[in-house]
Amino acid sequence: MLALLLAALQAAAPSPGPAPSPQSPSQIAAEAPAAEWVDITPNDLLVMELAPAATGRPRRIVIQLVPPPFSAPWVANIRTLARARWWDGTSVNRVQDNYVAQWGDATEAKPLPDGLLTGTEAGYTTQLDQQDSVVAGHVEHTLTPPITALRRADGGLEVDPYARGGVGFVGGFPVGNEGYGSPDTWPLHCYGAVGVGRNLSPDTGYGAELYAVIGHAPRHLDRNIAVVGRVIEGIEHLSSLPRGTGALGFYERPEERVAIRSIRLGSDLPAADRPRLQYLAEGGATMTRFIAARQNREPPFFIRPAGGADICNVPVPVRAAP
Amino acid sequence: MLALLLAALQAAAPSPGPAPSPQSPSQIAAEAPAAEWVDITPNDLLVMELAPAATGRPRRIVIQLVPPPFSAPWVANIRTLARARWWDGTSVNRVQDNYVAQWGDATEAKPLPDGLLTGTEAGYTTQLDQQDSVVAGHVEHTLTPPITALRRADGGLEVDPYARGGVGFVGGFPVGNEGYGSPDTWPLHCYGAVGVGRNLSPDTGYGAELYAVIGHAPRHLDRNIAVVGRVIEGIEHLSSLPRGTGALGFYERPEERVAIRSIRLGSDLPAADRPRLQYLAEGGATMTRFIAARQNREPPFFIRPAGGADICNVPVPVRAAP
Repeated sequence: MLALLLAALQAAAPSPGPAPSPQSPSQIAAEAPAAEWVDITPNDLLVMELAPAATGRPRRIVIQLVPPPFSAPWVANIRTLARARWWDGTSVNRVQDNYVAQWGDATEAKPLPDGLLTGTEAGYTTQLDQQDSVVAGHVEHTLTPPITALRRADGGLEVDPYARGGVGFVGGFPVGNEGYGSPDTWPLHCYGAVGVGRNLSPDTGYGAELYAVIGHAPRHLDRNIAVVGRVIEGIEHLSSLPRGTGALGFYERPEERVAIRSIRLGSDLPAADRPRLQYLAEGGATMTRFIAARQNREPPFFIRPAGGADICNVPVPVRAAP
Repeated sequence: MLALLLAALQAAAPSPGPAPSPQSPSQIAAEAPAAEWVDITPNDLLVMELAPAATGRPRRIVIQLVPPPFSAPWVANIRTLARARWWDGTSVNRVQDNYVAQWGDATEAKPLPDGLLTGTEAGYTTQLDQQDSVVAGHVEHTLTPPITALRRADGGLEVDPYARGGVGFVGGFPVGNEGYGSPDTWPLHCYGAVGVGRNLSPDTGYGAELYAVIGHAPRHLDRNIAVVGRVIEGIEHLSSLPRGTGALGFYERPEERVAIRSIRLGSDLPAADRPRLQYLAEGGATMTRFIAARQNREPPFFIRPAGGADICNVPVPVRAAP
């Protein structure tokens, strides 16, 4: 009766028969050549230290900031806030089941540092730089940075209920595109995505109040809020927190809040403390195989491959730099 | 700086201007007429009592069993196991982040009750009863029970990467369909879905080892495992458990396991303890409005409606019977 649900994630046992077990997605990623792993610069990492758990276990969360040109004013603000050590002594104040864990200044009275930028609502979507050229008699659009589209085995774009023009990857992040040659592109609210809490429109938030997605991807937030990063290590320290019992999952009693010791840019940490992480490059041969394996999970556990995948079920692999 | 992310979920404040705030999805559901709420019979409810939390708070989880004809042998087994009080004294043994919480007999030695059925792999998908008739010169297929398709505003089927024939609702559950007039239909692994842990194929599991989805919908499990229900109350008691540090999220030390006091069918509980719950009928006017509101989130919080929704972002509303 041992139920090894998703045993295929583990290293495959030696096959007793002639047909070797297909590689799992994680095995495929693990074998990617060094050239397909991209170093994440310490300036693009946000390192959040919660107070240790009751057991004494440290709780470190590492966030990769979304690359330019996405959400530029908010990402700039986050660097300013981290350098000002603004979050030190603040707390996680809200944990709503199947939705978000949110942190910031519970008093709502802490002065913000000087120099913060104000993003616009239009800035939730980014117009990538576009070059048009005529190739074999029809116009081709080239976007910079380029999007590596999520495709099915037949070469067609994967369908997506929220991005009619297709979805894909840029700089290790899942993005949606407006399609039909549009440069309009936006980062997605997949599991682990970090976004900027805000008040009602037209407020756009500064970035002092942040949340991470801890449930099914709330893609309806796409293009309605600035996405600034994704948690690439330690999401379990947020997702396993007790749910708040107040409206929207806010903790009702101050003592329920989870203290934040510090939030720093990786580049502001002593060299020995800096996370050294890499993501698997989109567009490389390995990521292409990884996507295909996520779309078509294989024996010995799976009996029926899906032939497709929700982009939020294709998490870009991350590893410690060797 | 108060960031009321998703403030639109709360009751709308009186509008200062002439345009009233649109109703949120939860407001729409709350106003459904009594005739659109369907009582969930106590025989279709599984009530799981974990040992109380460290704070002394009780932890009750209520699961709605999937209706016939889906996953019939496994659902029959679950009723047999509950009546045998087989789960009493077992435990939650595995919590894997962004995936599942799984429970059963950690010793793998507890004898199963007599009379359990063996499901087949073909049974992960159900052939609904199909009647063909010729209407206005073309063949129409009528399925029983009928599927209420998830559609977009233009009447077209919502796209889905895992179910090429479309997705919809039957008996309060999200399902996928093979399409093109096929009767092949299967319940989906959305957040809160309960499935039957199993060993490698051709094992199909009996239903003694169960898991609940606590992360982004692992839809690649659809048609690969029997889905037997969905958590409709208390999922937070599973989703906020500490993640296991062993392979696949298994707890490494026995004392980390979370004791299960009992699992009972609602119909086997004293009348006063029975959950009295209702779900919002698919196909009714209110569910249609609820779906549209989930596809197009509205001001004052949302500025850009998506025009569509992943079916797992359309959770069928459940309420306490009035």
